[in-house]
Amino acid sequence: MVVTRKPIPVGQAVERVMNVSKKGETEWVPLEQSLHRHLAETIIADHDIPAFDRSPYDGFAIRAEDSIHASKENPLTFHVVDHIGAGSVSEKKIGRYEAVRIMTGAKIPDGADTIVMLELANVISENGNERIELKRPFYSGDNISKKGEDTAEGERLIPAGTVIDSGVIALLATFGYAAVNVVKKPKIGIIATGTELLDISDPLEPGKIRNSNASMIYAQIQEAGGEPLNLGKMADHFDSCYEAVKKAIDKVDFLITTGGVSVGDFDFLPAIYERLGANVLFNKVGMRPGSVTTVAEYKGKLLFGLSGNPSACFVGFELFVKPVIKNWLLSDKPYSLYHQATLSKDFLKANPFTRFVRSSVSSENGKLFVDPVGLDKSSSVISLASTNALLVLPGGTKGYQKGDQVIVLMIKEERGCEWPWDIILSSSK
Amino acid sequence: MVVTRKPIPVGQAVERVMNVSKKGETEWVPLEQSLHRHLAETIIADHDIPAFDRSPYDGFAIRAEDSIHASKENPLTFHVVDHIGAGSVSEKKIGRYEAVRIMTGAKIPDGADTIVMLELANVISENGNERIELKRPFYSGDNISKKGEDTAEGERLIPAGTVIDSGVIALLATFGYAAVNVVKKPKIGIIATGTELLDISDPLEPGKIRNSNASMIYAQIQEAGGEPLNLGKMADHFDSCYEAVKKAIDKVDFLITTGGVSVGDFDFLPAIYERLGANVLFNKVGMRPGSVTTVAEYKGKLLFGLSGNPSACFVGFELFVKPVIKNWLLSDKPYSLYHQATLSKDFLKANPFTRFVRSSVSSENGKLFVDPVGLDKSSSVISLASTNALLVLPGGTKGYQKGDQVIVLMIKEERGCEWPWDIILSSSK
Repeated sequence: MVVTRKPIPVGQAVERVMNVSKKGETEWVPLEQSLHRHLAETIIADHDIPAFDRSPYDGFAIRAEDSIHASKENPLTFHVVDHIGAGSVSEKKIGRYEAVRIMTGAKIPDGADTIVMLELANVISENGNERIELKRPFYSGDNISKKGEDTAEGERLIPAGTVIDSGVIALLATFGYAAVNVVKKPKIGIIATGTELLDISDPLEPGKIRNSNASMIYAQIQEAGGEPLNLGKMADHFDSCYEAVKKAIDKVDFLITTGGVSVGDFDFLPAIYERLGANVLFNKVGMRPGSVTTVAEYKGKLLFGLSGNPSACFVGFELFVKPVIKNWLLSDKPYSLYHQATLSKDFLKANPFTRFVRSSVSSENGKLFVDPVGLDKSSSVISLASTNALLVLPGGTKGYQKGDQVIVLMIKEERGCEWPWDIILSSSK
Repeated sequence: MVVTRKPIPVGQAVERVMNVSKKGETEWVPLEQSLHRHLAETIIADHDIPAFDRSPYDGFAIRAEDSIHASKENPLTFHVVDHIGAGSVSEKKIGRYEAVRIMTGAKIPDGADTIVMLELANVISENGNERIELKRPFYSGDNISKKGEDTAEGERLIPAGTVIDSGVIALLATFGYAAVNVVKKPKIGIIATGTELLDISDPLEPGKIRNSNASMIYAQIQEAGGEPLNLGKMADHFDSCYEAVKKAIDKVDFLITTGGVSVGDFDFLPAIYERLGANVLFNKVGMRPGSVTTVAEYKGKLLFGLSGNPSACFVGFELFVKPVIKNWLLSDKPYSLYHQATLSKDFLKANPFTRFVRSSVSSENGKLFVDPVGLDKSSSVISLASTNALLVLPGGTKGYQKGDQVIVLMIKEERGCEWPWDIILSSSK
């Protein structure tokens, strides 16, 4: 059976998938286990930071007005009336020509309005009394970290959907989040289809290849923030594949299959979708690699039929599955961040379809450059290990030349972007 | 006790630390658990990819020479003598005007030298026999993925020390690595010191702050590839801190303390290092924030005395601890990747010391721009949640202006770089 398929533009394909994608539920995890998870709620400052006027240095708190006439020729003396360490609070209110010894981070005592750094005070101890001599004036507010200068109570600090990194954790700890409300990871099943597939530990056999897609997708799911479930590999046998897919759907939030989406005798994911009664969103996309990518929706769940070719499978995941995972995780920037970059070498293949070329982006003198890496075939696997970006070459042209300005998708960057496809696909020369 | 300290340039400080840093041992982990680990060995292709000439399409294998006179006016007929699915191998050698039905990925049968795509063959079935009609010629080598075109046996594909991502996993699976030889993670202890520190779940108290550094460093260690061990927080009490540090050293590969490195009464990490008999590598660095960062070496282990100020602590980790972790993990590019970028706004503070400003790097029209984020104080914490880069402003200048070309350290990027400090610190205006 040769099915005629009508390709749709890649932006439209992504839109159809996103239109049926869902948002995840939430759960609480201990702060120590929250790294790389996505915040389920916007973090709002529930108090000022700093929570009180504090000293940024070790030194002495005084009243600035008392120092106004201090100079080398006229050193002024202050009596040290208290010592406070960080975390302690002085009970004393500072009076005229009085000083309180203070530590970095400690609360400024009442009455004081400036801090004299330790290095600038000449300390004199005598008969159990301590005094300091100052040889220059200090001004009100100098060397004081003011209450609320870092953030004010009520500020919206981090939006829901943000991925938690070490910097976010610093804030969460500061605001007392010993546990964090995060989005539950979507559980994503993987079934690799193909009689040609060997297990990874199998020795090579004539005509066969090892099943690299399942392991690759497993890792891509983890990188995107999902929870992968490897449901094994299947030979090209319709009934058993149909049963495996049907059974898998109840166990997962989405299902990814690899292989079985071409137009040949043994390529039957489309047939499985038909027998299930699934709603096929598209079965051909105007893109290379991965034009046969087929996505369906069944019982509210997305079924991703990715190509069995490693590069096509990789690209299909990044374009269609990743934004669905990010949307599930409440990100409002679920698409890969894109940059403009200069093409480092000619890419002269003409193509009616938009190409996504495995590439490496680097910078020189503040400008971004992009280099396609390795063999540009949907079946290639080697280039995937040195890919940090997908170079987008919109179709309908006679190829691209060194120096052309192009769009690159930064697939390894945690920061994403909002709907990018109108801009990406209009970037054609 | 006011200790006089002599600052050393930041590049020299990093060099002193790296000179005593060590490389880790190795272990085997299952491929599925290898994501984000560092390869302990260079991966070399042990066979060609593809391992055999294979078909990139569903179609028919023929001898090209037989099709040379085919045209619309003169369609030529080929008898289909065998069907092979992916993973199967045809026993037949193709003869004159013979064709073998072939699937994507299958091995090209003997005698054939081109593939006719399914869409271009007119298939006729009659009395159990199948033949195809071709209306155009095909050329030898067309539509064949040649043995070794992706990579040849013996190629060095991925160097030891590379962090394993989904693309690397695709290669490892292809070459049969069901288990992977990775570097054991360094175990890194964290002790937060400071009487002012509350637990994260504690309500705020006057003069106190929550211990955000330990959680932040815990996450930074994980991000860099190490295994963190939270050893709790300590009040500013010399004997108990000394005992805690001494006890911790035997349990870890390196030890990080936060706080206790300034010049005040209660800042005694330097004193603890002295009592231990540790070799202090430096106790002052010509940088902001984090000038008081103190690093010592004891029994071959590095003791990092980071500042108690959140931003200074964060920066100290990125500059000094991260490259030590990456070196342990066999990376030959252990330092943060740097780019040149255009400063987006004035930064007019003069400073004798090199500044590392928490910043956000973005691109516009293919050029990189950097924006300092939030409050530029060593005590600030809020900016850490939106930092993706450290802007480096070498000291000795009267400040920087919008439009200046500056260096940025891409601390969130997995790719690193080789020794960067000569270039970074000579980038001054």
